[in-house]
Amino acid sequence: MRVAAMRQDRFVVEERPRPVPQSGDVLVKVRACGICGSDLHFFHHYDGLMDVTRALGGSTAGMEENRRQGPVLGHEFVCEVVDYGPDTNRALEPGQKVCSMPFLVRRGAPILVGSRPDVAGAYAEYMLLTEAMLLPVDEAMPDEAAALVEPVGIAIHAVNKARIGAGDVAVVVGCGPVGLTTIAVLKARGCEAIIASDLSPRRRQLASAMGATVVVDAAKASVIEAAAKAAPGAPLVVFESTGARNMLGRLVLESPANTRIIGVGISTAEESFYPMAAIAKEIQLTFVIYYAAEEFAEALDLMRGGAVDWRTLVTGKVGLDGVTEAFAALSDPEVHAKILIDPWSDARL
Amino acid sequence: MRVAAMRQDRFVVEERPRPVPQSGDVLVKVRACGICGSDLHFFHHYDGLMDVTRALGGSTAGMEENRRQGPVLGHEFVCEVVDYGPDTNRALEPGQKVCSMPFLVRRGAPILVGSRPDVAGAYAEYMLLTEAMLLPVDEAMPDEAAALVEPVGIAIHAVNKARIGAGDVAVVVGCGPVGLTTIAVLKARGCEAIIASDLSPRRRQLASAMGATVVVDAAKASVIEAAAKAAPGAPLVVFESTGARNMLGRLVLESPANTRIIGVGISTAEESFYPMAAIAKEIQLTFVIYYAAEEFAEALDLMRGGAVDWRTLVTGKVGLDGVTEAFAALSDPEVHAKILIDPWSDARL
Repeated sequence: MRVAAMRQDRFVVEERPRPVPQSGDVLVKVRACGICGSDLHFFHHYDGLMDVTRALGGSTAGMEENRRQGPVLGHEFVCEVVDYGPDTNRALEPGQKVCSMPFLVRRGAPILVGSRPDVAGAYAEYMLLTEAMLLPVDEAMPDEAAALVEPVGIAIHAVNKARIGAGDVAVVVGCGPVGLTTIAVLKARGCEAIIASDLSPRRRQLASAMGATVVVDAAKASVIEAAAKAAPGAPLVVFESTGARNMLGRLVLESPANTRIIGVGISTAEESFYPMAAIAKEIQLTFVIYYAAEEFAEALDLMRGGAVDWRTLVTGKVGLDGVTEAFAALSDPEVHAKILIDPWSDARL
Repeated sequence: MRVAAMRQDRFVVEERPRPVPQSGDVLVKVRACGICGSDLHFFHHYDGLMDVTRALGGSTAGMEENRRQGPVLGHEFVCEVVDYGPDTNRALEPGQKVCSMPFLVRRGAPILVGSRPDVAGAYAEYMLLTEAMLLPVDEAMPDEAAALVEPVGIAIHAVNKARIGAGDVAVVVGCGPVGLTTIAVLKARGCEAIIASDLSPRRRQLASAMGATVVVDAAKASVIEAAAKAAPGAPLVVFESTGARNMLGRLVLESPANTRIIGVGISTAEESFYPMAAIAKEIQLTFVIYYAAEEFAEALDLMRGGAVDWRTLVTGKVGLDGVTEAFAALSDPEVHAKILIDPWSDARL
């Protein structure tokens, strides 16, 4: 089968053996897979990720081996069932459209797809999933919508952890795909004040389209000040979705008392902040990474109900040969937001 | 009246005019006042506090004027009513023992006592309080117990913000007065696993006396590892009560997934941490400073009920002439925990 393998400075389409489903596995055919910001991070900062893994006391042996073999990324996918391994119930017919949390169970532990050579992701024609994690997707649901279930699950989890209340004002700092899906989920939850900021005019336009009620040019104004002005005295709940270095520290300085900051953006650098500012204002920093199973299922429901407009978010589609170009294009926020890979297409940007 | 005024490198007993109660004020006679860790910080790091105030965008004009005039600190006090200013209800008789949150209302805003030349604290024979904030204290309650209401209020607030649940394991890092009162409040709330650590053998002994179930020598072992061992798999709730630089960052690195860290210790330095470690483990950092009025009243109830053993915590008592010595003594954790000032006594350590 064909895969887009990550090599030093590009993605190379390589022929790999089609994986053989093991106990509890399902072989699935990939219909579409989104390119995630963390995939970009992986591609551009693999050395930095190994540095931070070492700094945090982890082993990088697996990451080194994965890079040697050419990682197959891709964890925002919609697939269809092809075949089952042993010890499976085979409840879903071959051809059934499915999505799944992006983990393959090995020795009882969920392993993130794309993180190990033997647990490949969806930048490929086929992949393995764990039968117990499959969620059936209606054939009527567009692949584009189904591929957004995973990032929407991230946003649902962040919003849940934030415990948004009736009087809260939501602030979304950075309108990449994470910020944009967060805006959509906040809107779907009935949040009435959603103040968003980004440096990019295009991203600000997308933020409005997704449901932001006030949109701020981050180069010209403070989103925190704008939020305080839009709803004087209301507690702020700030979603840090840029991952920009020291943005958390800046938000701690700028935020009013009792602000809750949700760290959604991924920053691998060592950062600095003033605890005294956080103490004096009783600020809370909640860091989130990904959803529980119920939240992933809720994301599928939300996409099924049409609450998140995939047509606004999905700005391009490529085949496996177009992945390198797509990664390059995503470095410019003015053009694309979410690009999907269709491994069976020969589309280029 | 006599006050112990903070001067460059010592406290000097000075004669100041007895303050005249203004609208809503009560003149009270100070019976006892605890020396708080933040008073020590104020004394030893006044320049650093001005630096951080400037770094956080604040004005230091008031702090400079306060220093010029010789600050009168003291916010952990028990007093008795002497006289009332205009616009007061005079519900409590002169001689009535009282405590109060340490704020004097000026132009409708609560001003922390000791923070301004015109709003002096309790290192003095007399001070002003706001009538509406007074809480009567039974004459039978020892002054030592009543003077602990304020620090116990801090601990109650920290424990409330931590939302301690039945299955949680509490970890108290640093057993100064804040850590020790936190241990006492956790015990009073029925928390069954309280793991504490300190570098000092004496402080570890006090931690056991206050109710810690496991006590760790911070020089020899990780309190986080000890907690994980004492209750494998249980969520940890960590009270950072040292204020030591970069301790928060260390705790983020060491803590297991889903740990909630409560920042109680005061650190004025710029600090560094790895957001990635907090993200990957979904760690929550909650910073707290002080109680709501209900929590302060709850602290008084707790002291009245005898839930916090003041005899263990209060290790010394001095008059105003002994304040400089007391501050010096408190730099050695082996000897003292909480020292009270009785402005009417001539006791020395």
